[in-house]
Amino acid sequence: MKFFEDIKLGDVVTNGRHTFAADEIKAFAHRFDPQRFHVDEAEAEKSHFGALCASGWHTAAVWMRLMVDQRRDEAEAALARGEKVPALGPALGLRDLKWLKPVYVGDTIDYKSEVIELRTSGSRPNRGLMTILSSGVNQKGETVISFISTTFVERRETS
Amino acid sequence: MKFFEDIKLGDVVTNGRHTFAADEIKAFAHRFDPQRFHVDEAEAEKSHFGALCASGWHTAAVWMRLMVDQRRDEAEAALARGEKVPALGPALGLRDLKWLKPVYVGDTIDYKSEVIELRTSGSRPNRGLMTILSSGVNQKGETVISFISTTFVERRETS
Repeated sequence: MKFFEDIKLGDVVTNGRHTFAADEIKAFAHRFDPQRFHVDEAEAEKSHFGALCASGWHTAAVWMRLMVDQRRDEAEAALARGEKVPALGPALGLRDLKWLKPVYVGDTIDYKSEVIELRTSGSRPNRGLMTILSSGVNQKGETVISFISTTFVERRETS
Repeated sequence: MKFFEDIKLGDVVTNGRHTFAADEIKAFAHRFDPQRFHVDEAEAEKSHFGALCASGWHTAAVWMRLMVDQRRDEAEAALARGEKVPALGPALGLRDLKWLKPVYVGDTIDYKSEVIELRTSGSRPNRGLMTILSSGVNQKGETVISFISTTFVERRETS
C-alpha cells in the first residue's frame, strides 16, 4: 500500500485470483448459507441457477482474503527495502454490493480494486479517506461481484 | 416467510442470536481475513481494537446463516399446516453495510430485519420487491452491523 499522498484517482490494484472448487463452495455454505443451490449438485440443477454455485458471501470473503494477502506482501516488501509502511484502516463499511452473476464450480475470479475517490479527513488529520470500487470478473469476462468501500489511509505528512 | 401481499411496512423479523467464540472467530479469520486482531489475542491487544474481535465478514455471514435457518423453519411449519410457501429471491445485493462496533469474544449478537420498502416489480409481475434493514445488536444494546438489502418475494395473486 501507498501513503495517501501517493495514491491517484484511477489507480488500479489487482488483488489476485481464485478458482472456486465444489468442496469449498459446499463447506462455506454448510456453515453460513445452507441453501440447496450452494450445498447439493442435484438440488442446484433443479434451481434457477442450474448448477452448484458459491454463496455471494463466499465470493466476497475470498476478495477479503486476497486483499489481506496482497497488502501483507506489499508491506513486507516495503519493510525489506527499508521503507515505511502506511497504516491502513479501519474500514467502516461498504455500499452498493452487487452479486451480478453466479459463481459456478471451476470458475476463476480475478479481483481488482480501483480508486474512485480521495479526500482528507476532518476528524483524523493524519489520515486520508480512500474510496475504492472492487470487483471480481470470471474467465468469460463477466463481472460477478462489485462493491464500493472506504477506508482510512495514513498520510506521509500531516499539515 | 409471507407472500408479498401479506408483508407490511415496519414488519420486523427476528433472525436469531449468536455468541461469538474465540475459536470460530480465529477459524473464519484464518481462512478469509487473517489480520492480526482477528487471529491472535496478544496481537489484538496491541491493536486499535484492544482485544480479539470478529471479521466484519464473519459478523455478516452469521446473519445469513440465521436468516436461512429461520426461513427454512418457517417454510417447514407452513408446509406442515398445509399452506403454500412463497418463493423468495434471488437477492441482488445490498447497500450501506456498516460495521459500527467491533464484535469481541463472548459477545452475543441479536439479529433482526425490518421491512422499509415494498414495491411491485415491472420485470416480474409474479414477484414483489421487498427491501429490509437488517441489523445486529450486542448484549449492551449497541448496534454492531447494519445493512439494507432487496429481494424478490412471490405474490399470492398476480394481476
